Amino acid sequence: MKDLDLSLYLVTDRSLSLNRPLEYIVEEAVKGGVTMVQLREKTCSSKEFYELAIRLKNCLKPFNIPLIINDRLDIALACDAEGLHIGQGDIPYDIARKLLGKDKIIGLSVENIQDAIDANKLDVDYIGISPVFSTPTKTDTAQAIGLEGVRQITQISKHRSVGIGGINRANAHDIIKCGADGISVVSAIMSADDPRSAAYELSELIECRG
Amino acid sequence: MKDLDLSLYLVTDRSLSLNRPLEYIVEEAVKGGVTMVQLREKTCSSKEFYELAIRLKNCLKPFNIPLIINDRLDIALACDAEGLHIGQGDIPYDIARKLLGKDKIIGLSVENIQDAIDANKLDVDYIGISPVFSTPTKTDTAQAIGLEGVRQITQISKHRSVGIGGINRANAHDIIKCGADGISVVSAIMSADDPRSAAYELSELIECRG
Repeated sequence: MKDLDLSLYLVTDRSLSLNRPLEYIVEEAVKGGVTMVQLREKTCSSKEFYELAIRLKNCLKPFNIPLIINDRLDIALACDAEGLHIGQGDIPYDIARKLLGKDKIIGLSVENIQDAIDANKLDVDYIGISPVFSTPTKTDTAQAIGLEGVRQITQISKHRSVGIGGINRANAHDIIKCGADGISVVSAIMSADDPRSAAYELSELIECRG
Repeated sequence: MKDLDLSLYLVTDRSLSLNRPLEYIVEEAVKGGVTMVQLREKTCSSKEFYELAIRLKNCLKPFNIPLIINDRLDIALACDAEGLHIGQGDIPYDIARKLLGKDKIIGLSVENIQDAIDANKLDVDYIGISPVFSTPTKTDTAQAIGLEGVRQITQISKHRSVGIGGINRANAHDIIKCGADGISVVSAIMSADDPRSAAYELSELIECRG
C-alpha cells in the first residue's frame, strides 16, 4: 500500500478561483494543510493543460505533495505526475494501470455500492466516493449518495477512500465519522477568501476523528 | 522515413455522419480508396473515445490502414493506434514523441509559414497544412491559407504533407498540384450519400497528378 495522506484532498476548478492564479490558491491551500492536489480541467487545450500541470508540479514539489491529474492519462504521463484520478466514464482502470505502472497513484470514482464492489477487484490506490452531496461545481455527476451511502461504501470497500461533492466546514467531520479516510473539496478552498485559513480549518475538523 | 500513403486521408466527425455508424462510413471509405484514417473526437468521454478507437482499429486492421488519433496521446497509447495527430494547441511534439516512441506516426498541423519552418526542426512524419480553405467543420482553426499558402509551405517544408480544410472534388486536384502529398477530408466523405464512391472519386482526382 502506498504511503498516501488522503485527509484533505483539493480538486481544482479554475472557474471557482475568483480570478486568482491557480498556483497561488494551491500553494496557500498546501500551507494550510492540504495533503493531495488533483488538477481537473475539462475545457482547455491539451497544451494549456500540460503547461498548467507542469507549473503545479513545480509548485507542489517543495512541499512533497502529490499531484494527481483528473482523467487525462496523457497529461499525467507528460508531466510525470504522481498519479491519475479516473471516473467511471474515463479510460478503463486496467489500461491506465498498464500505461502508468504500478508505482503511480490511481484513484477511481465510485458513485454507488456496485461501483465500490467492482473496485474491490482492482488494485486502485483509493476510491473517491462521489457525490456525497449535490454540488453545483460538477454537473455530470450521479445522484448524491448522502452520508449513509458513504457509510455503506466504506464498510464494504477494501480501499482507502475520500468523500467528494458538496463538502465544507459544516459536514467535513461527518464524512470522516462515516469511515472515509479524507475529504475532497473544490469550492470550499478554491473560492475561499483565504484559501490557507480555509484549508487549515478543514484539516482541524478532520483531525477531530471519532 | 516511414512507409506512409498520405494520398487520401479521412478525418472523422461523427456530427457529420448523417446518423450512420462511424465504422460503416470508415469501412466504406477505405474500400473506396482512403489510405489513412484519423479519429477526431472533441466532446465525448475518454471511455467512449477509447472504445470507439478500439472499434475503428479492429475495423481498419484487415485493410492494413493506419489509425491516427487526434490530440489524445492517452487514447493513442491505450488502443495502440498507429499514430497521433497533434495541433499547435496540443501536447508538445517532443513529449508526444518520447511517450509514443520512434516507430509511431506523428503528424503535426501547421497553420502558417512560421509553423512549417519550426516543424522542419522536428522529426514529425508529416505535416497537415490547415486550413486550406475556410470550413464549417472546425471552428477553432486559424485563417485559411489558400492554395498559395499550400504552395509556399510545401516548398519550404522538408516533410511530407496533406492539405486539410474545405477540400472536396472541386479543389482536390489543386492541392496536389501545389505540392502536397495528399488531401485530408472530413465532410466530403463523412456526409457523402455514398462514402465509398466519394472516396473513389477523390482518389481518382489525386492520382491525376501534374
